[in-house]
Amino acid sequence: MDAIITLDIGGTNTRCALFHAEKDDPVSIDRIETTTESASAIDNISQLIERNWPKDRSVAGIAAAAPGSIDVVQNKVILAPNIPNWRDFPLGEILQKRFGVKVLVNNDARMAAVGEWKRGAGRGHNDILYFTVSTGLGGGVITGGRILQGAVGIATEVGHIVLQDDGPACGCGRFGHFEAFSSGTGIHNYVCGKIKAGAPTILKSSSPSTKEIAEAAKAGDALALEAFNRAGYYLGIGVANYLHIFNPSCVIFGGGVSQSGDLIFKPFRASLEQHVLSPNYLANLKIAVAELGDNAGLIGTFEYMKQNL
Amino acid sequence: MDAIITLDIGGTNTRCALFHAEKDDPVSIDRIETTTESASAIDNISQLIERNWPKDRSVAGIAAAAPGSIDVVQNKVILAPNIPNWRDFPLGEILQKRFGVKVLVNNDARMAAVGEWKRGAGRGHNDILYFTVSTGLGGGVITGGRILQGAVGIATEVGHIVLQDDGPACGCGRFGHFEAFSSGTGIHNYVCGKIKAGAPTILKSSSPSTKEIAEAAKAGDALALEAFNRAGYYLGIGVANYLHIFNPSCVIFGGGVSQSGDLIFKPFRASLEQHVLSPNYLANLKIAVAELGDNAGLIGTFEYMKQNL
Repeated sequence: MDAIITLDIGGTNTRCALFHAEKDDPVSIDRIETTTESASAIDNISQLIERNWPKDRSVAGIAAAAPGSIDVVQNKVILAPNIPNWRDFPLGEILQKRFGVKVLVNNDARMAAVGEWKRGAGRGHNDILYFTVSTGLGGGVITGGRILQGAVGIATEVGHIVLQDDGPACGCGRFGHFEAFSSGTGIHNYVCGKIKAGAPTILKSSSPSTKEIAEAAKAGDALALEAFNRAGYYLGIGVANYLHIFNPSCVIFGGGVSQSGDLIFKPFRASLEQHVLSPNYLANLKIAVAELGDNAGLIGTFEYMKQNL
Repeated sequence: MDAIITLDIGGTNTRCALFHAEKDDPVSIDRIETTTESASAIDNISQLIERNWPKDRSVAGIAAAAPGSIDVVQNKVILAPNIPNWRDFPLGEILQKRFGVKVLVNNDARMAAVGEWKRGAGRGHNDILYFTVSTGLGGGVITGGRILQGAVGIATEVGHIVLQDDGPACGCGRFGHFEAFSSGTGIHNYVCGKIKAGAPTILKSSSPSTKEIAEAAKAGDALALEAFNRAGYYLGIGVANYLHIFNPSCVIFGGGVSQSGDLIFKPFRASLEQHVLSPNYLANLKIAVAELGDNAGLIGTFEYMKQNL
């Protein structure tokens, strides 16, 4: 049987997994630091692939997950926030020429969604919403047992829907997006604004991390609690919107902010029940945290490649 | 070849078409007034089917489009706003028992989307958003060449996403939904509120119809123009949200409000360009008005039945 190599090109690290096509789990996982300068980024990724190339079997394909907008028809990076020069960058074509095998490129959050669908919290479901709530708010959607990608692959930018036209600035430059309310950055920005305005808090820093805010909230700090309540409230609005759009049987939360438990999920659930159009959307709905952790993307790209061979 | 009978159960009329499976266009179209009282509603619909039953060929199936929430797995009406007693109403099962043929039931806006996809403005596209902007704001989505339905069929309630948490009341009882801003009812309610508050206008009635408001806008009335500008502005926000979610190659507008031309589409286009995440979502995007008019639902259910025979 053939081997499949998968990559997860993240903001900090690029990880590489070698799979044997007949086995579910990777044979090996390797990593390097992500180079943000584009010319050496592609060379470093190529070296990572080379050193993980199997000696004992042929490679059927390489599948890469990258953050940002990906054209999945041309396997091209339209825009990657962490590698500024990768604009309309033909990642798939370059790797295909270097290694002479089939190459697929797709969005990292979508590939994590595929991983959770095939091997994680979404197993057995055909209609899944996956949200990764961390610095940003991304995700992927499975509908009718298929990956939602859109005409060129830039669908499911789930964090970039307007929830409040006059809301806070989003990382994308627009206003009032779901991500601007419910991501780690949204929580951070809200707290910083309140501290600047003189709100009392036990937080020492004027620019605390989401983790520090979570700790302060657990210690009962009113401002930190308010920040998580607000993020959870808008998470409920956003997810209710998506239930009305997709009627899934399973909603999965990954990412760092999803680790904060009741701090975010208690206000989330109250808001979801308040905003959902009818109880039918919640009947038989599984709401779960992601199971695959950091490996979701590597596993998802492996499953994605297998589907497309 | 067999015949297929389709129904479009609307708020005012119920229409019935007889198709020959091998032909695109209906052999005949018939209509009755919709009875809102549930017991006679089903009897009247049955009589409509009987009088359109073909004498010269067998019937392969009956497909019905109805407004409201439809369980497409059980072919059951969960909730139909215009027939109050149709709650968890087994329309498919009743018709199947009476006529002894396969019966499918689905949402009317979704079936209109299928009609436009197969035979109207969406021909040749695999990723389509269809919006019907009239009294309410409904729609349907084709993604990757498949009809988006969700786990039980209550997906694509496209009008019921929150655009502004503290926004106007929606017909569903919640607040700030897309429908509450951009539907005919949204336009009407906005104008009524402003008239009550003493805004100057050439409108005579304190409760003008959307048509009257459109006429006043064409005559240069500032309030009426403001109402359409506002509806178009939020239509741009809502559609931008959906472009980010679905990355379609085609967006189609049906329904009465879509007939008002530049009044709504000029502010819509400006708002869409303002709110879209990147020009990639607009590149190669066809934006069109629906082509099939009142027959979209009858044709869509015919195509839907053919897909499922």
